[in-house]
Parts: sequence; C-alpha cells; structure tokens
Amino acid sequence: MNQNRIDRIMNELDGMGVSQMLIVDPMSIYYLTGVFNDPHERFYGLLLRKDGKHAYFLNNLFSIPEDVGVEKVWYSDTDPVMEIVARYLDNAAPLGVDKDLKARFLLPLMEQQAASGFVNTSLAIDIVRGIKDAEEQEKMRVASHINDCAMAELKKLIHEGVTEKEVAEKLQGIYLELGADGFSFDPLVAFGANAADPHHGPDDTVLKEGDVVLFDVGCIKNGYCSDMTRSFYYKTITDKHREIYETVRAANEAAIAKVKPGVPLMELDLTARNLITEKGYGPQFNHRLGHFIGLSCHEYGDVSCVNETKAVPGMIFSIEPGIYLVGATGVRIEDLVLVTEDGCEVLNHYTKELDVIG
Amino acid sequence: MNQNRIDRIMNELDGMGVSQMLIVDPMSIYYLTGVFNDPHERFYGLLLRKDGKHAYFLNNLFSIPEDVGVEKVWYSDTDPVMEIVARYLDNAAPLGVDKDLKARFLLPLMEQQAASGFVNTSLAIDIVRGIKDAEEQEKMRVASHINDCAMAELKKLIHEGVTEKEVAEKLQGIYLELGADGFSFDPLVAFGANAADPHHGPDDTVLKEGDVVLFDVGCIKNGYCSDMTRSFYYKTITDKHREIYETVRAANEAAIAKVKPGVPLMELDLTARNLITEKGYGPQFNHRLGHFIGLSCHEYGDVSCVNETKAVPGMIFSIEPGIYLVGATGVRIEDLVLVTEDGCEVLNHYTKELDVIG
Repeated sequence: MNQNRIDRIMNELDGMGVSQMLIVDPMSIYYLTGVFNDPHERFYGLLLRKDGKHAYFLNNLFSIPEDVGVEKVWYSDTDPVMEIVARYLDNAAPLGVDKDLKARFLLPLMEQQAASGFVNTSLAIDIVRGIKDAEEQEKMRVASHINDCAMAELKKLIHEGVTEKEVAEKLQGIYLELGADGFSFDPLVAFGANAADPHHGPDDTVLKEGDVVLFDVGCIKNGYCSDMTRSFYYKTITDKHREIYETVRAANEAAIAKVKPGVPLMELDLTARNLITEKGYGPQFNHRLGHFIGLSCHEYGDVSCVNETKAVPGMIFSIEPGIYLVGATGVRIEDLVLVTEDGCEVLNHYTKELDVIG
Repeated sequence: MNQNRIDRIMNELDGMGVSQMLIVDPMSIYYLTGVFNDPHERFYGLLLRKDGKHAYFLNNLFSIPEDVGVEKVWYSDTDPVMEIVARYLDNAAPLGVDKDLKARFLLPLMEQQAASGFVNTSLAIDIVRGIKDAEEQEKMRVASHINDCAMAELKKLIHEGVTEKEVAEKLQGIYLELGADGFSFDPLVAFGANAADPHHGPDDTVLKEGDVVLFDVGCIKNGYCSDMTRSFYYKTITDKHREIYETVRAANEAAIAKVKPGVPLMELDLTARNLITEKGYGPQFNHRLGHFIGLSCHEYGDVSCVNETKAVPGMIFSIEPGIYLVGATGVRIEDLVLVTEDGCEVLNHYTKELDVIG
C-alpha cells in the first residue's frame, strides 16, 4: 500500500465529511496497492477507513501477491459477497462509493442499510490521481516518447492503395518493437471523409490523392498511457483544407501557450474554441479540448468550456482541437502537456508542420 | 428495434411490477437495436417503457445509424445528462435499472427522485438473452466450429523450447485465417504448474517434458462467442496425472449426459463435483462448473452448486470442470452445450481423448 497516496485521499475524504470509501476501479486499486487485477463480472474492492481498518475484497479465483499490506477478505462465487462487504462498513456513517460501483453491488448495500448514506466520492481519488508525482511524470514522458517514434513509423506506411486497416494492423508490432507494452486504446486511422468522425475505427477504405490521413494513437509503457493525434495529407491539399489545418494547429498552439498553474481549464478550451469560431468553424469543433490521462487513457478531469478547475503543477492532459466537415474531411492535432511550476512541458515532440506526403 | 425481444423483456418486467427500465449494457442494447457502440466513460442508455415511449440516449460523439426505430435523445459533453434522462422517466413509478449502471449515473437519478424507487431488473433481460433463438443458435455453432479448428492448429505449435507467449501470439492470426472476427477473451495458455491457476495468462515459461499444456480459448464470429478448453501432455505423463485427466474428463462427460430441459443447473455442477470429490480432488475443483455465453463470453447465469434454475431449450452454457494442484499441474476440459428439446447438443467436437504429444 502506498501510504502517501492513501493519506492524500483520506485528506480529501475528510474535506467531504466522509470517513470510509469503497474503491472498485481496478486502476485506482493498482495506484494504491501496486496490484493489478481484472475482476471481469466479479466483485473486487478496496475499502479505505479513517480508523485504518482497511479491507481488500477478493474472489478466491484472483491471483494476488502474498504481501499487500492490507487485510484480505476472500469470498467464493457462492458467497453472498455484498453481505460480507457490509460487515466491514460502519453503518452509522455515510459510505463514499467509487463512481464506477455498479448497481448490482450498490443496491444490495443500500437494501442492507450498510451505511447511513451513499455518496459518490471518486473525486477524492481522481483529484489525487490527477496530479502526477515525479515517478509518474517520468513514466508519462517515456510513453509519449515512444508515441513520437511510432508516429514517424506510421507515416512511412502511407502509400498508394493502402487501406486504413492495413496501416492500423502494423501499429501493434511498431509499439512492441519500440519497447511499449501495448495499446493504450484501439488506434484510430482515418482517411479523407472518414476523419470527420472523431471516433472512426480503421476499415477497408483505400487511400486516395487529396485525402487527409489522421492518426490518433497511444501506447502503454510501465502502466502509463500516451495519446497523440497528427493529421497528414496525401499528395495534394486544397487551399480550404490548408486553412482548416492551420486553424487547428493555431488553436492547439494557442491553448498550449496559456497552460500554467492557476489558469482555469475552461480558459484553455475557450482559447482554442474562440480561435476556431472566428474562422467560422465553431460548430465543427464538437467536443471538449482535452482529457486527463495517466494509468488510464481517459482519467477524471476534462479540459472543457465548463470546467472551472484551475491547473496545478503535475496535471497531465491532452490538448486536442479539431474541425470536422461531415462527408468531406477532419483534422485534429493532439499533444499531452504536463503543467509545470511556471508553464507547461509538452510531452510530444513530433512536428506539427503541415506535411503533404508523397 | 427487435420488437419480439422487447415484448419478451416487457413481459418479464411486468412480472416484476416494473413499467420502465434503463438499460446500459452495450451488448443488451445491441441485442435490441442491432447497433453496437462502446461509450467508454460517457453515458449510453436505452429506456424501455410499457407505454411504448422508449428513448435512446446518445452522446453527440457516438456514430449511430439513421434509422433505429426509437426516439434518439442526443446530449453533449457539457450537458447535464442525467437531468435529461430524468425528464423521460415516470417519477411516480419505480425504475428498473441495469445491473451495470454505475454509481455516477444512478446516484444523480436518486438525488433527483427521478423515480419512486430503483430496483435491479437486469434479470428481465438476462433471462431473455439466456435463451437463444434459432438465428443465435446457428451463430453459436459457427463460432464453436471455428474454435474446434483453431484447437487443432494450436496443437501443432507444441514443440520443444516454445513458450506460452509464442503460442498465444499465433492465435489471433489463426482465428482471422479461419474467418473469425477476433478473440472472445484473452487466450489462456498454461504449461505445467502454471495450469494450476485457472486464470493464468501466457508468459515466457518454456515447455518441458511431462508438462500439461492447457489451452482455454475462444473467438467471436458475427457477434457471438465461443469458448473451449483442452489439456494436452507433452511427451510423457505420470500415472497420477493420467488419473487426474481421466477424472476431469469423466466429470465433463457425466455432467453433459445430464443436460436436458427441467434439470436444475446445480445438479450439473454437483454431478461433476461429486465425481471429482470421490476421487479425492474436491477442494482442487475451486470454481463453478460453467457460465452462460452468447453475445458476451460471460453472460448472466451460471452452472454452480447453488443455482436452482432449471434448464430450458435454447440455453447455451459451458461445462468446464477442472482439478488444480498448486505448484504442480492443472487440468480443465470445457465444452459449450445447447439445451435441446430432449437433451443437449454439444457445440464443440474437438476430441477429449487423452493426448500425449511428441
């Protein structure tokens, strides 16, 4: 158990008036115990209590190291698991629950009146996880460095007649070759009009002259995620597409230039959004500017026009403005940034210069 | 929308005294709409109402076909999505919720008193999904046939010096070659003592003489899953291991012989368990006999010693007894069976004869 991280979380819970919390996100449990386990449909939880009587609930099919530094409570598939969990709760106090706790586990606790109330206190963990310590920052740099190298390799795969799927299928090998442990998310490869869908998955679309080539890719290394987007053009580019590309790039760079401790995250989104809106593409930038990232690719915290949270050193999030013209094209340029004492460090170094290939 | 399936679900809900249900499992939504969408952390739901005022809640980043046959309710990342959902609920009636509905969506509905009560009614869907119609049965046969063929290919990869990972890494290609769409779960490949962990993931362990070689693998084809386990031996086998293998095989076959409409599922588990216990390995068979399977690899419904549910034609589940000796060996033999009018059809045809390779 990482006592420093637990202390920071208990401190946040204290501020919420909560003395016990049931954590179920396997990544949050890994963050605190160093043990990763994928429970599938079974219950898996870590109870933190202010009085130190923590408990780690485990199905006897899970493989867990001997010494985790917390009381292990084992159950089998035929045990009434939520009755067992209830015995470890203080039913006179409210229970903080993980935002991911599912109804099939939460409702039985409510029916048993296992606590005096139930409140989503994931923020206590999310805030702590959102500020990376030095060890985490270094792992994030390494994962993004691999991603920069992978982007250079992906670019080499762009040639006449290739399909999105053919390019995407090479990426796993590229990452492993570069030392990554795998994908942080399924890679997005989109040619031409397909890029207008921000979540388009690679299909059999064949590359043709004039297409935009959008890569939104990321890997995991030592548990930490990278995530970057670049948009290339194949052979030719129209003046309109050039204007769109340069608008997105300017929005990405303007937002990054604003990142420093104390700036409300919404200001970053609005900086990019206003710049894109001035060029007439406001409605075509139909998502938030960015998301937090770390052990998970999408962590709590977003860089959206309604988030008043202020930047704090150690935060790492994406800056990814885009413009999407349905049926025609799409451009997105994404970097990860780490908030520093006086500004930010951009974790991606792959060029954002307009690049017309071939 | 598949009206027949909706009617069956509304009928189940009626029996529970519930007139509205919020479904969030993407596979259940696919089962009803034919549309698959992975919402990641965003809200995605299908509301079914007895009065027919169904609603499909969608983030504007999701790609959904035009015509789904149900009212679409779009929201953006900056909208208060659970307030929008609440407007479509009858707050004077209880709301059935999906077992997978997360606390971050359920608690806000409770705070708004969006319904007169909240009850887990997933059973209404699970029972319906648990009984496959003819179209689904045929898709399950096809997926298991591919799995039989893949097992034969896997066996060919067993040779001196090979590692678990090297074998596992070939399986994706084998499946694609055989026409599958991908894995239904991450393949388990375990040599020797590693097989004692029922969930052991492939690592760098090198095959050696006398090892058991356990493959627990499955693919997806046309949305439906297969799942089969076979245990081979490399070069030699001790008398004790032979006895263990034949005990597991006898347990598998005895349970399958009992499958027919009306038999309580617990009787299948106990048939296998008693047989293994008589041989002295009761504690070493430390999991349920089987699980239901279909669109998801693990669906609701298990074949365990406490499930009194009776078999019904159309049910498909696994029969997978095992014996695990920690530090030494493990054997599991798994088939999928389809309950028929007068017995069962075994979907796997790969031999269960003891096979000492090499």
